Amino acid sequence: MEERRVIEVKKNILAANDEAADAFRAARAEEGTFFVDVMASPGAGKTTILLAIIAELRRRGVADLGVIEADLESDVDALKIKEAGVASVELNTRGVCHVEMGMVERAFAAFAGAAGRFDYLFLENIGNLVCPADFDTGAHTRVMLLSVPEGWDKVMKYPPMFAAVDALIVTKCDYLPLNDDFDMDRLKTEARRLNPDLNIFVTSARTGEGVPDLVDWLQSQRAAKVQG
Amino acid sequence: MEERRVIEVKKNILAANDEAADAFRAARAEEGTFFVDVMASPGAGKTTILLAIIAELRRRGVADLGVIEADLESDVDALKIKEAGVASVELNTRGVCHVEMGMVERAFAAFAGAAGRFDYLFLENIGNLVCPADFDTGAHTRVMLLSVPEGWDKVMKYPPMFAAVDALIVTKCDYLPLNDDFDMDRLKTEARRLNPDLNIFVTSARTGEGVPDLVDWLQSQRAAKVQG
Repeated sequence: MEERRVIEVKKNILAANDEAADAFRAARAEEGTFFVDVMASPGAGKTTILLAIIAELRRRGVADLGVIEADLESDVDALKIKEAGVASVELNTRGVCHVEMGMVERAFAAFAGAAGRFDYLFLENIGNLVCPADFDTGAHTRVMLLSVPEGWDKVMKYPPMFAAVDALIVTKCDYLPLNDDFDMDRLKTEARRLNPDLNIFVTSARTGEGVPDLVDWLQSQRAAKVQG
Repeated sequence: MEERRVIEVKKNILAANDEAADAFRAARAEEGTFFVDVMASPGAGKTTILLAIIAELRRRGVADLGVIEADLESDVDALKIKEAGVASVELNTRGVCHVEMGMVERAFAAFAGAAGRFDYLFLENIGNLVCPADFDTGAHTRVMLLSVPEGWDKVMKYPPMFAAVDALIVTKCDYLPLNDDFDMDRLKTEARRLNPDLNIFVTSARTGEGVPDLVDWLQSQRAAKVQG
């Protein structure tokens, strides 16, 4: 009974959220801002891979970059991004386990001159491999990270996230020699069973492996999905 | 408006959940079953440390052990526990991000002759460092894992979980040589700032480091909290 009420209210919230997400996505596309939602477990390396992507984009001459840093309470990651000299806004969910459109809209409005300012805008979502999968954040592309130390079999255990994203970024591949039970082939097979169009990138932010390929792909996605 | 309705309904659900949890906890204590809730991010090593704890308990002559294996959809971990010859029940949340009492009660009832059968019963909760903190599962003791590859700073980013548990089990310490930025002292300081009574165990299931201390503590907790 109570559970059914929650499900109904949640459905209404998700429908309103989807509508706001579509509007946000369209507005950013018109302005030439490509918006990427980055999701993963805690500690999978979201901030670190973002910094690697940003460094590679800068090497390629792309300078107009922004990051929305979502966290339950702290500003640890937001500070790391600021230290790299990247425009960032802290999105504090106050304990909420995912990011919704109202939060994205408020965070975006907090950038000075946000409209049209960015070529790329990233959302570092809450560290959570479950709940964020359900909530459209208005991004043009959704990616997830899976770090090698987490184990390949997470694809069996958290399928909704693998099914929801456009790309899987395997991170911390410098740990592979320590993880001879990490079955990369099975990970790829099972992930593509859930999501046949999934793009998969095998990376290490420490060695730089895989980052240029990932940035090539992001640039092609941007060209296909936003103007200018 | 919608959000406020969700919060109200959630409050009612949590109150009912707490009541059921108290009843479950009391019933198990009378039967001599010590119930432990194990929480962590995906891939922190919940199943692996459980298998190490179980092996150590068996070495000490404790044989009556059970595990409730919660998962969004799969039976990957339940199979690993079964392979070790441990009584286990699979608790499938069908995508729900945490475990509630109704699920625990149904899972417990699925053990043949559950009442009074176990000295120790473990719940491997959903891999999620956010949502399970809010839901009392009727356990006598709640523990969380943080694996070294996740990074010490997760204590800054996911404080509700660190505040909710009786013990923090740092796992995968065999990775420490690869993680010279893992600040164990700061982790301990910050965790105890959130939770002054927190017990902290530094472990590696691979090398066995820390597991006997952890099992000593579990046995002392059992002696204090359940009968017989």
